[in-house]
Amino acid sequence: MINRLVERIQKTNAPIVVGLDPMMKFVPEHIRQAAFSEYGETLKGAAEAILAYNKGIVDAISDLVPAVKPQIAMYEQFGTEGLIAYQKTVAYCKQKGLIVIADVKRGDIGSTSEAYAAAHLGKVTVGTKTYAPFDADFATVNPYLGSDGIQPFLKVCQEEKKGIFVLVKTSNPSSGEFQDRLVDGRPLYEIVGEQVARWGETCMGEQYSYVGAVVGATYPEQGKVLRALMPKAFILVPGYGAQGGKGADLVHFFREDGLGAIVNSSRGIIAAYQQEKYARFGAKNYADASRQAVLDMKEDIAQALRERENAAKGKGHGEL
Amino acid sequence: MINRLVERIQKTNAPIVVGLDPMMKFVPEHIRQAAFSEYGETLKGAAEAILAYNKGIVDAISDLVPAVKPQIAMYEQFGTEGLIAYQKTVAYCKQKGLIVIADVKRGDIGSTSEAYAAAHLGKVTVGTKTYAPFDADFATVNPYLGSDGIQPFLKVCQEEKKGIFVLVKTSNPSSGEFQDRLVDGRPLYEIVGEQVARWGETCMGEQYSYVGAVVGATYPEQGKVLRALMPKAFILVPGYGAQGGKGADLVHFFREDGLGAIVNSSRGIIAAYQQEKYARFGAKNYADASRQAVLDMKEDIAQALRERENAAKGKGHGEL
Repeated sequence: MINRLVERIQKTNAPIVVGLDPMMKFVPEHIRQAAFSEYGETLKGAAEAILAYNKGIVDAISDLVPAVKPQIAMYEQFGTEGLIAYQKTVAYCKQKGLIVIADVKRGDIGSTSEAYAAAHLGKVTVGTKTYAPFDADFATVNPYLGSDGIQPFLKVCQEEKKGIFVLVKTSNPSSGEFQDRLVDGRPLYEIVGEQVARWGETCMGEQYSYVGAVVGATYPEQGKVLRALMPKAFILVPGYGAQGGKGADLVHFFREDGLGAIVNSSRGIIAAYQQEKYARFGAKNYADASRQAVLDMKEDIAQALRERENAAKGKGHGEL
Repeated sequence: MINRLVERIQKTNAPIVVGLDPMMKFVPEHIRQAAFSEYGETLKGAAEAILAYNKGIVDAISDLVPAVKPQIAMYEQFGTEGLIAYQKTVAYCKQKGLIVIADVKRGDIGSTSEAYAAAHLGKVTVGTKTYAPFDADFATVNPYLGSDGIQPFLKVCQEEKKGIFVLVKTSNPSSGEFQDRLVDGRPLYEIVGEQVARWGETCMGEQYSYVGAVVGATYPEQGKVLRALMPKAFILVPGYGAQGGKGADLVHFFREDGLGAIVNSSRGIIAAYQQEKYARFGAKNYADASRQAVLDMKEDIAQALRERENAAKGKGHGEL
């Protein structure tokens, strides 16, 4: 699956993943009303509204980007109806050829992680039958419990050719509270990053490992260090846009060849129509606003990578 | 809710929580067959089987213990059908007067943790209506993302009088990989434990905080240190029984008054009938085996606490 991700990034020329994190306040009035008039102001009504909203966005962007990342919490908050919408969203995106990164941040002791790995990436047996319950392509995983919480995911990655992204340095303001604490003079996220590289050696694709890392766009300096520490890990970079990460901050996460990272934007894309910049589209055409926001993000990242390349060339000339 | 937990522990005289972590291999043949013959070997069939199995156990133990702890991964592995069984299990246990600790180990950046907190402990709004999707009494939470991932849970705890248990030192063999790393000469779990105590000050019940901690029975020495560092935190202690924790190991987690900790046992109770010790009950009477296992666990803990008390008295006499 990591090979397919690389392939799709090269084909679309967009190291971009669209975060499908549908808050009700993002869903245009006409979609909400249609769902509520059919199902009432119920959890099912909410679930149907976010599913319809997602489908509109997916239809508008599926040719532009390699992947989507639904954040399961945004579905879980609507209970089992919300999770049915999550499952349908995953299936719809896969049907449209998109790679699905399940942002579930699961992680537990071994036997429990085994159940999570089966739920989100693998298969489960019922009597003589086998099912793939949520069947995403990648999942995000929390490392706090150490290797025996990660091993069951590695096993499923090997069997099913799927992948994980392990939280290393998260994008939120207080991520440093524990992740930056110095262990033998080095921040904890570096220790976790080194472990990600070790886990990754057991699950290699062609150039990259099936085991990637999450490193927030809001911490570009840390990204530079981690890029070097985990040379074969793909980095999933949240925090671009709404959380404050900019194109120029992102270059550190990419390898020299412009690969090795995939940048997530959620509300910056899916709720683009609510921004002044894209207000001209209007709520009815929210999906077109999302498409334009993807095109702009693609250009922002491409420009930052070109500038880095030019700077490197300039430096090369200077050294002649 | 923490006051109610203390009350129920005192009333039952059992600082015990039964882990409802139903693996299919624990479910007696007759229950599996009944579910499969009605729903087929489907995810719904599996979900109905674990629900029926749970209900049998709950009926047999609800007068003996204050609380249950369903591990959501064991339901999530059967997809949305499994999560419907999870939701019904929570509701059934509450109806039987049990306190429900949702073992979900969620944790994310602020806006996402807000959705998880609403899903599992709080309420969500759909138009003009309000729903409590999973509506447990407590939830377990992963601290790796720091304070802004915890704050939304604290807010819900304050509003709904519910509680959380934050992972501090987990029971699994590799928990030390990151949790034991030394930060300024002290293990990370102590740093997290101190933060749990600080978070807890903002959500106090009568004697204890709404913010508790998870500390594994398999690490009694660490439990002693953490008990002192977090004097007002209730400690949820997994790892008793199947994972290797013994009654004598547990005393360090309790305060002098015999309160302050609640010990979890999952397969040791729910799959008791598969142990040689309880084989006489047979699969048909699996719930009676679970009841006997609870009684034995209760006695094991009570004896360990009595021995500690006697040792303290003996020491007291010696000092006269």
